[in-house]
Formats: sequence, structure tokens, C-alpha cells
Amino acid sequence: MLTATQRIRVEWAHCDPAGIFFNPHYYIWMDSGTHALLQAAGFDLVGQIHSDELFRGCPLVASNMAFKRPLYFGDVTLCTSRVERFGNTSFVVAHEFTQGDNSDPVATGNEVRVWGYSDADDPTKLLARAMPEEVRAMLSVEKTVDVTV
Amino acid sequence: MLTATQRIRVEWAHCDPAGIFFNPHYYIWMDSGTHALLQAAGFDLVGQIHSDELFRGCPLVASNMAFKRPLYFGDVTLCTSRVERFGNTSFVVAHEFTQGDNSDPVATGNEVRVWGYSDADDPTKLLARAMPEEVRAMLSVEKTVDVTV
Amino acid sequence: MLTATQRIRVEWAHCDPAGIFFNPHYYIWMDSGTHALLQAAGFDLVGQIHSDELFRGCPLVASNMAFKRPLYFGDVTLCTSRVERFGNTSFVVAHEFTQGDNSDPVATGNEVRVWGYSDADDPTKLLARAMPEEVRAMLSVEKTVDVTV
Amino acid sequence: MLTATQRIRVEWAHCDPAGIFFNPHYYIWMDSGTHALLQAAGFDLVGQIHSDELFRGCPLVASNMAFKRPLYFGDVTLCTSRVERFGNTSFVVAHEFTQGDNSDPVATGNEVRVWGYSDADDPTKLLARAMPEEVRAMLSVEKTVDVTV
Repeated sequence: MLTATQRIRVEWAHCDPAGIFFNPHYYIWMDSGTHALLQAAGFDLVGQIHSDELFRGCPLVASNMAFKRPLYFGDVTLCTSRVERFGNTSFVVAHEFTQGDNSDPVATGNEVRVWGYSDADDPTKLLARAMPEEVRAMLSVEKTVDVTV
Repeated sequence: MLTATQRIRVEWAHCDPAGIFFNPHYYIWMDSGTHALLQAAGFDLVGQIHSDELFRGCPLVASNMAFKRPLYFGDVTLCTSRVERFGNTSFVVAHEFTQGDNSDPVATGNEVRVWGYSDADDPTKLLARAMPEEVRAMLSVEKTVDVTV
Repeated sequence: MLTATQRIRVEWAHCDPAGIFFNPHYYIWMDSGTHALLQAAGFDLVGQIHSDELFRGCPLVASNMAFKRPLYFGDVTLCTSRVERFGNTSFVVAHEFTQGDNSDPVATGNEVRVWGYSDADDPTKLLARAMPEEVRAMLSVEKTVDVTV
Repeated sequence: MLTATQRIRVEWAHCDPAGIFFNPHYYIWMDSGTHALLQAAGFDLVGQIHSDELFRGCPLVASNMAFKRPLYFGDVTLCTSRVERFGNTSFVVAHEFTQGDNSDPVATGNEVRVWGYSDADDPTKLLARAMPEEVRAMLSVEKTVDVTV
């Protein structure tokens, strides 16, 4: 599977009164990891949203994480993102956060997303469609890309 | 179980370029719901952290959510929080987000938390201990409290 | 001037490793205050954006704040928002944050906003136009509205 | 003056329903710029907070920004941070955000900070002291450091 990695620094802004990384930010980083993965695959999500009036991107239908060790202000973590499973209309992106040479993750998580379209008859209604074969192929390439800014 | 409810307004700041509520904010609201639940129970988390040097509050060890329908700018959602299960050292807080009279939730989620202490010999190490019986009793009262600001 | 007030609770999520409210959140609350003010005035910003393809809302061109005293987790602050000055194409919204009966503000700030339109010939270009007279009148009513959720 | 530069990518999470960068995040980035500047100078802010019980870091007393052009999802901006002025107890950090080869900034801002201490007799009281001469010297070195993660 195509794998995107990005280094992320824990900022003062990310830490809570206990002095440690505030967990909800991990979910933002998973979102960032998925966007970077699609871009690394060569799929232009925003361009597609602009050119196809009904395409709604890849809305999240579920997510989960397990937190193993805390991160502190100034720590740098590596987020590794790849598709773990392609369903009919959904797909699962797995994210792993590690630190330095320690392969034992700091945190791991999954996002369940769908390939979303607005119903032409009722634009407020979301339809989940199969991911196009070509996008699936782009995400299935065996390659690791560093997407750090 | 003690149940805390709070109304939350979806702000411009919470919405993404797709015009809908950006999901990671839900995890922040679950955190808020748990803090409000502890306060409604009469447990002073921050006071306890200040008075007991080794107490680290209730660190999150895992969380998950399912998203059913989008929220839009200006929507008001009701977050309902209660403990769903007490384990030996962990406990699960369940959160449900609804809108208006529709009991079908917009989103649901769980937080798995522990009663955390620093190891006196190695303060960077987190020990999970059993929640004190009295706190468990406070959280088990059959009552619903509106904790909206 | 029309004045919108809202109570806001300082959440765990808002506080930094120094244990105090992290200031950038104030700028988010000013944004919330302005949106609530427009709504209290009876102006439907999002409806207008949806119905007038070129209208871009009220983009921020500058902002500033002074911070007098820290806020802590659990504190409740009152944000009071009103237009302070109408310019030709810009207007200034003043926000004041107080606590309890103490009229001495915790923080004060200003937002400079314009009434924004996309250039029909180049949609990436922002044009600042005069705020419609009727909106100006709506914002000039002498009334205070509690917009707390 | 010592100058810290960091590349920052505009994430989906940073953008609002107008599809553009939500301005309050700039204030978070200025905070990050100041922390990175102190670290680039060789001053260990968090270590100092831990080792000196009364030291409170560099609390913000005021901040302001002007926004010239919008940023969009996927844009990369360069944040350039340096001390602009040393006062008696306060100092001003100036931040400039640019894009690509265009030296015309996207946004500019200032933070006014103090060298903060708790009053030993009343820890809730903040005292502003003069920045130590050696830190001032460290921040005055003529050098530019890339602090991108």
C-alpha cells in the first residue's frame, strides 16, 4: 500500500494543563495524514470537489484511537498513514504515531471513510459510492512517501 | 447512572471547507462532557490534581466515535454523557449527540479512561489505579444534570 | 448599538501547560461573538452566502487584543460584542470579556472586517463594499441580546 | 536579530466554510514561532519552568495581526519570527507570513510578551520582570535559523 509519513512537532498549543499532548489533536493529524496520502497518490481532492458539483470528498463515518504513551511539548512524532482495507463504498485508513527509533507506537488509530456524493435530487443527502478503480490503484502502489511540509 | 447534558452550538470555527462540522471537535466535546460529568458528580478534578501531587486525573487510553449525520453552522446539538462501565482501573464514558426532538443520534462515542497516578519513583510513569469507591458512587447516582454553561 | 452577550466556559481543552487559558482561543470567541451579533441583528449570513453567489461574508482584515488577567479551567467569562465604528467598506467589532460582577475586563479586543464580494471577473479577488444600509440599521438598534447557546 | 523561519502547510482542519484559512490559527502559529525562536536561541523555556518554581514563561499581554490575502487548503506559508523591540519587562515578537518568492506578506503580526514570575507571596499574581541579559543577547544574534520540524 502507498504509505505517507510526516513528522509533526508537539507545540505548546497542543498541550493541556497536565503538560501533555491533548488527545483530540491526534484526530486532526489523522485527517491531515489522509489528505496528504491522497495527495501523495496523485489524487487532487479539492480540485475534484470544485470540478464535480456532487462530489463531497471522503467524509468520515467512524474513527478510533488507542493512546499508549504521552507526548510532551517539543516532542517530534512520525505519523504513518496507509489504507488498510477497501470495502464496497467505505475504506479504512490506518495511522500509526511513533517516536525516534522506537517502533513501539505512541498511538494508533483508524478512520473509516466513504467516497461521498450528494444526492442530485436532495443535496443534503449523502450517498456513499465505490471509490473509483483508478484511485484505488493509486493508493495501492507499494511506495513510501515523506509528506512532511 | 449520573447523566450530564449540555447544549453546544456549532460555530463557524467548527466547520470545514465542505461547510459541515469538522469531526475532531466532537472528541473535544466528549472531553468537555466528561469534565462536566465529574463536576456534576461533585468531584473536583483540578482541586484534586493540585492537592495530591501524584494524581494525574483521568487520562484517556482509547476513544472512538461513529458519525451518522452532518452538523451545520448554527446547529445546536445536545451532548449526553454518562459512565457506561466501570472496570478495575478503567472506566468507559459514553457520549451521545442529538438534535432537537430527534432521538436518533447525530453521533455517538466512547472514551476509555483510567484513574491515573504518577509512579512516586518515576514521575514520567503512569499508574492506573481503581477509581475510589466514593467517586464511583457519585457517578452512579440516578440523576440527569444540565451542565450547559 | 446592538450588543450581544454570551457566557463561555473555559474548558480543559482551552488551557495550556501553564494551566491557564491559551490566548488564541479568544480570537475564536471574538469570531463567534460577531456571528452571534449578526444573527441577533436578524441578518442571516450563511443564507446570504448561499443565495448570493458573489457575497463572501465579512472577512477579517485585522484584529487585536489585550490580555489583562488569566482565565483558568472552569471559569465562566462573559463576551460582550458590538460594532464600534462603521467605515466606508470596513467596520470594527469590539469585544470585551468580563468575569462575574467585576466590570474590569479580563481581555478586550477588536476585529476589523469588510463586507466582502468576489470580483465577478476574477473570483479569487476580494472586493470590499459598503455594508448595506439595512444591515447597518439592524446593528445600530439600542438593545442587548443574550446569545448564549 | 535572531530570526526563526518555519514552513507551515495549510491543512483542511485550518480552513473554514468559505474555503479559506481561518485567521485565529495564525495566532497559534505566532505562538509556535516564538517558542521555536526561543529554542533556536538556545533557551530552554520548559526546562526553566520546571527548574524555577516561580518562572511562568513569557505570557502574552497583547497581540495583533493584519491579514492581506487569503490562504487556501494545501498552501505552504513561511513564518518568519524575530524580536522587534526589547522593553523594560516586555518585548515584542514580530511575525511575518509569506508565500513562495512573493516577499509581499500574506499576513503580519506582533506579540507583546513579558518575562513572567509568580509573586512568591501570592502565586496567582503575575510579576513582569526584565528579561535576563543573557537571553536578550541570545535573541540578538544576527542569524537566521530554519526551525521547520
